[in-house]
Amino acid sequence: MSVYSLGLGIGTKSGVGELLEVYYPAPQLNPKGEWVDKVLGYIKNPESAVHEIRLEKAKLIADMIPNHPKFDDTTRTIIFTVLKDDRAPSSTAEAYLKLHLLSHRLVRPHETNLTGIFRTLPNVAWTNEGAIAIDELAKRQLSARLKGRYLSVNSVDKFPKMTDYIVPSGVRIAHTARVRLGAYVGEGSTIMHEGFINFNAGCEGPNMIEGRISAGVMVDSGTDLGGGCSTMGTLSGGNDIVISIGKNCLLGANSGCGIPLGDNCTIEAGLYITGGSKINILNKAGEIEKSVKAASLSGVSDLLFRRNSLKGYIECKPLKAAIVLNDELHSHN
Amino acid sequence: MSVYSLGLGIGTKSGVGELLEVYYPAPQLNPKGEWVDKVLGYIKNPESAVHEIRLEKAKLIADMIPNHPKFDDTTRTIIFTVLKDDRAPSSTAEAYLKLHLLSHRLVRPHETNLTGIFRTLPNVAWTNEGAIAIDELAKRQLSARLKGRYLSVNSVDKFPKMTDYIVPSGVRIAHTARVRLGAYVGEGSTIMHEGFINFNAGCEGPNMIEGRISAGVMVDSGTDLGGGCSTMGTLSGGNDIVISIGKNCLLGANSGCGIPLGDNCTIEAGLYITGGSKINILNKAGEIEKSVKAASLSGVSDLLFRRNSLKGYIECKPLKAAIVLNDELHSHN
Amino acid sequence: MSVYSLGLGIGTKSGVGELLEVYYPAPQLNPKGEWVDKVLGYIKNPESAVHEIRLEKAKLIADMIPNHPKFDDTTRTIIFTVLKDDRAPSSTAEAYLKLHLLSHRLVRPHETNLTGIFRTLPNVAWTNEGAIAIDELAKRQLSARLKGRYLSVNSVDKFPKMTDYIVPSGVRIAHTARVRLGAYVGEGSTIMHEGFINFNAGCEGPNMIEGRISAGVMVDSGTDLGGGCSTMGTLSGGNDIVISIGKNCLLGANSGCGIPLGDNCTIEAGLYITGGSKINILNKAGEIEKSVKAASLSGVSDLLFRRNSLKGYIECKPLKAAIVLNDELHSHN
Repeated sequence: MSVYSLGLGIGTKSGVGELLEVYYPAPQLNPKGEWVDKVLGYIKNPESAVHEIRLEKAKLIADMIPNHPKFDDTTRTIIFTVLKDDRAPSSTAEAYLKLHLLSHRLVRPHETNLTGIFRTLPNVAWTNEGAIAIDELAKRQLSARLKGRYLSVNSVDKFPKMTDYIVPSGVRIAHTARVRLGAYVGEGSTIMHEGFINFNAGCEGPNMIEGRISAGVMVDSGTDLGGGCSTMGTLSGGNDIVISIGKNCLLGANSGCGIPLGDNCTIEAGLYITGGSKINILNKAGEIEKSVKAASLSGVSDLLFRRNSLKGYIECKPLKAAIVLNDELHSHN
Repeated sequence: MSVYSLGLGIGTKSGVGELLEVYYPAPQLNPKGEWVDKVLGYIKNPESAVHEIRLEKAKLIADMIPNHPKFDDTTRTIIFTVLKDDRAPSSTAEAYLKLHLLSHRLVRPHETNLTGIFRTLPNVAWTNEGAIAIDELAKRQLSARLKGRYLSVNSVDKFPKMTDYIVPSGVRIAHTARVRLGAYVGEGSTIMHEGFINFNAGCEGPNMIEGRISAGVMVDSGTDLGGGCSTMGTLSGGNDIVISIGKNCLLGANSGCGIPLGDNCTIEAGLYITGGSKINILNKAGEIEKSVKAASLSGVSDLLFRRNSLKGYIECKPLKAAIVLNDELHSHN
Repeated sequence: MSVYSLGLGIGTKSGVGELLEVYYPAPQLNPKGEWVDKVLGYIKNPESAVHEIRLEKAKLIADMIPNHPKFDDTTRTIIFTVLKDDRAPSSTAEAYLKLHLLSHRLVRPHETNLTGIFRTLPNVAWTNEGAIAIDELAKRQLSARLKGRYLSVNSVDKFPKMTDYIVPSGVRIAHTARVRLGAYVGEGSTIMHEGFINFNAGCEGPNMIEGRISAGVMVDSGTDLGGGCSTMGTLSGGNDIVISIGKNCLLGANSGCGIPLGDNCTIEAGLYITGGSKINILNKAGEIEKSVKAASLSGVSDLLFRRNSLKGYIECKPLKAAIVLNDELHSHN
């Protein structure tokens, strides 16, 4: 039988039995082989995607999945999730499996269907004692204080931080609280303290990321995001253009980008380019040729964007040949 | 008897008996009813605001305060604080009670007297083992290391993070280290990783906060602060204008605001407006009418601020009717 | 015998015996006195810089170093490091000792040789259970989950956060995850939540730091870095100018500085000055005298930088006498 993804996980439940989160140590994408049918044979209700299973069964399944770590004894909730196809997640366990696929680099941003994921994720208090249901928190806090324990709430969010689930190979993430589960962090990437990566977003690697990669944004290899720079996300509303940043670009510190950027582009420190910014295009001689909306430069490579510091306008200088506009977008100017 | 506020709390003391912090699970504002007199009858020295009490008395008081959680056995320091009126706090326990009133949404920013609060708050090392006095920290760190424990210092500050004391209902706070106790976080607010809220500051809710709400600043409902945007605080010196942001505004990513903003205003991404910025006012036809200091637009609604990307000047476009200046401020231009 | 530095430390090893980090409670710079020779007499192989020693020897050495805290019983790895001169670090233990010298304020940024330090520092998972080798992390995470423990990874980086090693006197650091070991934080400094200090960088104190101090950058006393402001680092490539910020300067919120700044300078909120920015110099009457590259204003004092909000150009206004350019840099314009 062919399935889209499956994962054996350990979950945390609230006091009333609501599933708060699931950790899948070794999620599988498009698993193939005889073992898949065998594993699915263990499931009682094969029409369901999410199965709470017992330890013995979990041990058997873990042993059958190639390269899956051994499952030791535990009293925790064990979840076995099977996604037959790539439909929108309809439960917490399914959503977490899809977020794992991204952070395990099994899929890239936009390659798995996350429609409606917010509805499937409970808001959770992420504490030094693990995930706690929001409406059970106050009682837990008082109890901990009385007992002399320090219960610290590090995040109140639908998404946990990625590194508590998976640290992909070959990365540095200086301050992990700023990278959500569901981020794609490519091999060779360094995410500095000011870096941020939302879910369904990421960088191909190698990259130096000291700015913010908003939900839906993908940054290609060799590109640096300077300190505090901004990429415009699609969740901010109004805008359905998916921003991406090409290869070998440099977004300067405190700059911003609201258009899909081609390869080898530079945005000077402190300059924010939005799709509606009007920009003076320079020719190779440095003279103004014409003015266009930034959106018409979407995807064009080899551009330097800066604000002329004596004239105040935004200018775009070709770094190689003369600039060829993105016709489709330019025609809508 | 009428009192301004009271709270039953659990405190942490330094090795030499200095009170470092107090956690009040259920602070009371303007408590009314017979129970108030009864509770105050338990206090030995009614002229004092702060009372260290024994467990038995704490249990009795907790039972008498309506809806107060039960007080279980504890060996911790128990503090009962009674503020007869809203005077400036003169001790750590009083200051913490006032900060709780804000974060429990019992008062809004500027509604309780915090004069001189910095003097009442000790600088504390906030660690994974709780609050530690600064001058006892080095010894504790060495001792923990020798014993193989990991003592981590998450903050060295006069203010703790809010969520270790109270998570108000209906909020998400993705990275809690950036919201101080004394912040007011309205129902329906999402504070993203780049968001920040100082004490005596906050947002009415619902809001999407990805920028910084400085001390003293209040953000009204329906307003979005974009990633990395800045609001000017009153603690930064020189400026005694209290900044506020009206309803349904949008401060773009990496923008900034140094004037009180009216409703339905937008500041474009990357643009910083200070009170002294000179701004070209556009009429409905898009022509420049005159130039004014930004301060004279304080509190005016329905404005779009942007930097003309071809001319370099800052312009302000009316979104509805023509702009009517704030006369009082304009006359000082 | 004269040595450059020595330190008695407690280390963490990976499962295969690799040293991941070393904590030196009381590092010594240029130690003098008879005790130095005596202490060195305890070392078996005096040509080596790094010595793993036994508890008894550590206790003896701790007692001989003036003002060194007593060394209690421990089963941890004990490291005694002796740097005969200030050469580039060639091992983890040496690198950590040098980073301690900076954060203990025994040397200032650029005063100790850190050449090649990245090669000597392993990438480490900094967790609530201490330092863990990256390739041992996944197994530890699964094991902790099965056992119901919450293993949280706070950073994946070559540098730990400073405050887990040393909190220097007289500082506040609101969010310690943003200050690396190797930062120099002067007496009287407040590092707010948005502040950041890299290694081999810092501030003299007193300072209010709400912006980012990049690697190699030093900020002099009395200077404020506004929220989200940026200083250009030397690690970002291309640029070998070491940025420094003079006394009593103000970098406004969301501003940036890419030149060494003199004393008493202000950069307006939201304005980024890079070395290549062309700037209109104003005379005392406020008229434009000439245009220069920002680099030629390197180190010049008493300057106000702002973008003329009606003309769009960057201007520099002398705050005292007329501006005298930095001739050496100006001649390269």
